Amino acid sequence: MSAETGKDYYDYSDWYENALPTKPPIEVIPPCDPTADDGLYHICIAAISLVVMLILAVLARRQKVGDSLKGVPGLLSPVNFLDHTQHKGLSVAVFGVLFCKIIGLVLASNPLPFTKDTQYKEYWLILALFYYPALYYPLLACGTLHNKVGYVLGSLLSWTHFGVLVWQKVDCPKTPQIYKYYALFSSLPQIACLAFLSFQYPLLLFKGLKGTEKTNASEDLKSSYYRDYVKKILKKKKPSQASSRPKLSERISDAFKSYIYTPEEVFRFPLKLAISLVVAFIALYQMALLLVTGIVPTLQIVRRGVDEDIAFLLAGFNIHLSDDRKEVVKIVVHYMWCVEVCYASAVTLSCLVNLTMFMRSMVLHRSNLRGLYRGDIYNVYNCQRNIRPSRPALVCWMGFTSYQAAFICLGMIIQTLVFFICLLFGVFLVIIPIFYGKNMLLFHVIGRMWPFWLMLFLVGLIQHLTSRFLFIKKEAGTRDLTNRGSLFLLTYLLFPVNILVGALLGIWRLVITALFNIVHLGRLDISLLNRNVEAFDPGYHCYAHYLKIEVSQSHPVMKAFCGLLLQAPGQDKGSGQAVRDAEEGIQLVSQDKKQNKPVSNGKRARGHWHLLYTLVNNPSLVGSRKHFQRQSSESFINGTLNRSSKEGSKMEGGATEASKEAEGAATN
Amino acid sequence: MSAETGKDYYDYSDWYENALPTKPPIEVIPPCDPTADDGLYHICIAAISLVVMLILAVLARRQKVGDSLKGVPGLLSPVNFLDHTQHKGLSVAVFGVLFCKIIGLVLASNPLPFTKDTQYKEYWLILALFYYPALYYPLLACGTLHNKVGYVLGSLLSWTHFGVLVWQKVDCPKTPQIYKYYALFSSLPQIACLAFLSFQYPLLLFKGLKGTEKTNASEDLKSSYYRDYVKKILKKKKPSQASSRPKLSERISDAFKSYIYTPEEVFRFPLKLAISLVVAFIALYQMALLLVTGIVPTLQIVRRGVDEDIAFLLAGFNIHLSDDRKEVVKIVVHYMWCVEVCYASAVTLSCLVNLTMFMRSMVLHRSNLRGLYRGDIYNVYNCQRNIRPSRPALVCWMGFTSYQAAFICLGMIIQTLVFFICLLFGVFLVIIPIFYGKNMLLFHVIGRMWPFWLMLFLVGLIQHLTSRFLFIKKEAGTRDLTNRGSLFLLTYLLFPVNILVGALLGIWRLVITALFNIVHLGRLDISLLNRNVEAFDPGYHCYAHYLKIEVSQSHPVMKAFCGLLLQAPGQDKGSGQAVRDAEEGIQLVSQDKKQNKPVSNGKRARGHWHLLYTLVNNPSLVGSRKHFQRQSSESFINGTLNRSSKEGSKMEGGATEASKEAEGAATN
Repeated sequence: MSAETGKDYYDYSDWYENALPTKPPIEVIPPCDPTADDGLYHICIAAISLVVMLILAVLARRQKVGDSLKGVPGLLSPVNFLDHTQHKGLSVAVFGVLFCKIIGLVLASNPLPFTKDTQYKEYWLILALFYYPALYYPLLACGTLHNKVGYVLGSLLSWTHFGVLVWQKVDCPKTPQIYKYYALFSSLPQIACLAFLSFQYPLLLFKGLKGTEKTNASEDLKSSYYRDYVKKILKKKKPSQASSRPKLSERISDAFKSYIYTPEEVFRFPLKLAISLVVAFIALYQMALLLVTGIVPTLQIVRRGVDEDIAFLLAGFNIHLSDDRKEVVKIVVHYMWCVEVCYASAVTLSCLVNLTMFMRSMVLHRSNLRGLYRGDIYNVYNCQRNIRPSRPALVCWMGFTSYQAAFICLGMIIQTLVFFICLLFGVFLVIIPIFYGKNMLLFHVIGRMWPFWLMLFLVGLIQHLTSRFLFIKKEAGTRDLTNRGSLFLLTYLLFPVNILVGALLGIWRLVITALFNIVHLGRLDISLLNRNVEAFDPGYHCYAHYLKIEVSQSHPVMKAFCGLLLQAPGQDKGSGQAVRDAEEGIQLVSQDKKQNKPVSNGKRARGHWHLLYTLVNNPSLVGSRKHFQRQSSESFINGTLNRSSKEGSKMEGGATEASKEAEGAATN
Repeated sequence: MSAETGKDYYDYSDWYENALPTKPPIEVIPPCDPTADDGLYHICIAAISLVVMLILAVLARRQKVGDSLKGVPGLLSPVNFLDHTQHKGLSVAVFGVLFCKIIGLVLASNPLPFTKDTQYKEYWLILALFYYPALYYPLLACGTLHNKVGYVLGSLLSWTHFGVLVWQKVDCPKTPQIYKYYALFSSLPQIACLAFLSFQYPLLLFKGLKGTEKTNASEDLKSSYYRDYVKKILKKKKPSQASSRPKLSERISDAFKSYIYTPEEVFRFPLKLAISLVVAFIALYQMALLLVTGIVPTLQIVRRGVDEDIAFLLAGFNIHLSDDRKEVVKIVVHYMWCVEVCYASAVTLSCLVNLTMFMRSMVLHRSNLRGLYRGDIYNVYNCQRNIRPSRPALVCWMGFTSYQAAFICLGMIIQTLVFFICLLFGVFLVIIPIFYGKNMLLFHVIGRMWPFWLMLFLVGLIQHLTSRFLFIKKEAGTRDLTNRGSLFLLTYLLFPVNILVGALLGIWRLVITALFNIVHLGRLDISLLNRNVEAFDPGYHCYAHYLKIEVSQSHPVMKAFCGLLLQAPGQDKGSGQAVRDAEEGIQLVSQDKKQNKPVSNGKRARGHWHLLYTLVNNPSLVGSRKHFQRQSSESFINGTLNRSSKEGSKMEGGATEASKEAEGAATN
């Protein structure tokens, strides 16, 4: 453990007073060992987690008799990332806890709590990257069985995690690492997530006891969300767009609104996206904390350490601020205070920018998902693409949450750096000269160049005015060129001056491009490259592929249709038979039907008719159905599902039509 | 004039020998005053130019009697920027000469040759920016009248300019400015352009004497270019695109081909674009020259100046290269030679990149122009736009050539800087350590982190392999997910590791975005911003607007149609009457018809029928024709022209149809 001890009060009061610094006694923070030792605690909790998993496995095996597919395999995949309606809280909270732990890992002196060995730190770190997901895994798994025992175990486990973490932080609020309260602040999101879990599991248990909780896992397809979504789509009419160009004020307000996310009842974020957003938010908090506590206290210590020796040091560099040495100290301290303010402003600005980008991303995520559900592939991707799973798409889908978090962290560092430099230039070249009348360097340069600025301004004005009044004539609602001779003459004569204008525009292009890309660095949903090479931007590439998987696998219309299909036979056989697994529901349909062979002939005939009707209306499907022709009525469902995942663009129309058909059949 | 004299031999021989530097005697270059003094020469040539313009004006006034619209106004707009068929050489050469002069201005100690006053240099510079276009103006104007006297004057004037410039350069090949031969090399493109003019004017005179030159200015509309273009379009069938995805090798070769411009017979660049390309090429040459001659000789001088004192200097910075001082000198000289090589490579690389970008731009210009001619607005602009002149569009059109040149210059500076830094890092952190086994810093860092690289590689491999073989099943030609449970589990477990992958991807995003934007900085035809905010890039904004004006004003189908209309009545009245001004041709049609009132009733009736036919086939036009209804047959032409400029997207079909109609009428 590094014995970094010389940290100072993190006291903001004299930031604002700007008084001469006094030297407070340096507080020495001893390395703190909490009563609940981390190593011991982890050995215990790992053992407890293992026991919990074993209990859950036994439970799952017993439950398996009643339910065909849930059980131990279900226990091994407690997060259904492709489900929009599942209760998201548990997964999001566990991911939050895990992410906070990972951030802590990178900075910790001993990544794995079992060992204090620092020689092979990198190996322990790699091990820790796999240990912590496994450690928090039972917290997810306890909710999977939808079982009272599972909820009780979950409650106990989350209380333990929460209790020990709070105990440790109360025991040791100050640590010598980075800044005395850094560890405390850094663990706040983790505490919040664990508190949420500690509250959520008892709530689920309570609901389970009262019987209000839905009793099976097929809430996914049973949920009314997908049906509501389809109904809303069918109901909603697109507002007729006025063909006239919108006014400037309208366009500004539209642009403003597009940065504000307003939740809509009929739309829910996919689970993976919800996790990504929460993790990204935690990443933002952690980076801001790190950036502030990593630099500001050091700057303050340096500022406090300024004494009269600084005058000699500056003289060594031929910088002469004042004859009076106290005056020099005062000036240097003031400048350093300015640097601190710039830095704090840069971090704040970076946070604000990223928060705005979050909101904008959420708006864009929604509109992109909706666009793809509608089959509007061209608008989203700017090219025609196959919306179906592929190897690179799946890899991107798996990494999406992590990449988003990493991009936010990287983006914040770069943003803070750039904003800091810009603010520093702004303060020392513009603001201080204006207020104190010193270092008027920039103003002198601009002042000496005034004939150029005037000329450029006049030339620009002349071009705009002549264009408006001399060279363009309006006739009968159309605009056309006139006075072409003078236009060509002016173009020739102003050629040299326009080169200077062009140089300014070039600098502006450089600045705006750099600024745009730096501001949007943390966003995956837009490409930072030109539209023709968008896919070379790894961030956007990942997002585009992520959307593919998400849309191809969890299209709400397809899900609503599956739900209806599952319900239709279920009504005949009672609710007990209708229990099906959510994610394997599609394959289940055929299995189920095979189990209950004596299907009434009427149903069978109706199935055949549905099939025929679908094929007549969609002749392009006949070719892709070959291998289904052995089977009879099941093929209808499979065929339609295959089709819906294959033909993204025609999907909504076809599928809703088919689902209306099915609805009609169900109500018969 | 700055008395910078201490310049050295610009001798590459010992670059390659890498021998210990010997100190050659320093060559002192005295300020050189050519026999043809610049001030005196400019006074004379300005006076001669004025006289030439007066003579031309008198000639134009006399010629005006025969020709209604040409003459003094024609003399004032000698460049018809909107004409694709005009002989482009003269305009391009004059723009080239002017541009070289402007580049020279910025570096010159006395911008205006009449005065040696350096106190008000900025004012003289501004004046010079307007003086030089005026000075070279007669070179353009002499070609406007299409008159033997004009050509004789043009020949004399260009010979004078050429002769004096060559004389001055022969007199004073070495100047103390920047590098001894800089002024000579810098004026090479200017000499080439003037030589071209000196050759072109006599050629035109010769053709005029032989009578092979076209005798009037309406060669624009008379030219067969536009008709050929239309014929080609009507003939050409779009190659049927194979619906199957192209192979990787095909895609690579396509991408490669898209960077090579192959001239096509039926397409000519608009004059303004041709000028822009030539000026941009000259800008590239001048910048490369400046970058090489501005830095390399200085570096060489510094390298030659290294002696044994450098060991003490380095010791002052705690840098200890070797015990032997001669050894230290050798090492330092070698390192400085590496820096020189890096710099020269960076400039070369920057030139090559820009040349490649030129070619690509030319390909893109052509495809964009063709796309817009076809009415394919959405593909070019990525949104629907009105293709008609507007104030900002006209301002952008006027400045296009200048902006292009300025962007190239700025781009080259930035590119050289960035490439230089990258090469420096590459050489000192990679190549030198590999060859000499010293400074293995980077390799040590990478080596120490090998467990991480291995882990990241393995995790990436696992994700790709499982995606390929475990999670995606192929069934009947469609791909779908399978083993969802394991997929979700893997996604959860690899979340922490993927954050590290994401950090690498983030850095890659940063690098590729920066590199792409820096490489494409000099190109106006693509936006460096995201596709939704493309227009905020000032370069692309200018290009988009430029295209608008170009297409709306010089659409080849429209011009072919106008040409046919002008020819049809001309055939009845003889060739003398058919002389019409190119650019004012459209308005002329109606005037002409008024002058020759007794149009045969058959023609009139046919005109009516054309009108009716057009309106029946394009009912949307009826509304926009209101104000034309007073006039009878002229309205057909005006109406069609208005329409064609208004309805960009429907244009090609309608106009070609109408032109075929007109052709039919003409051959009747």
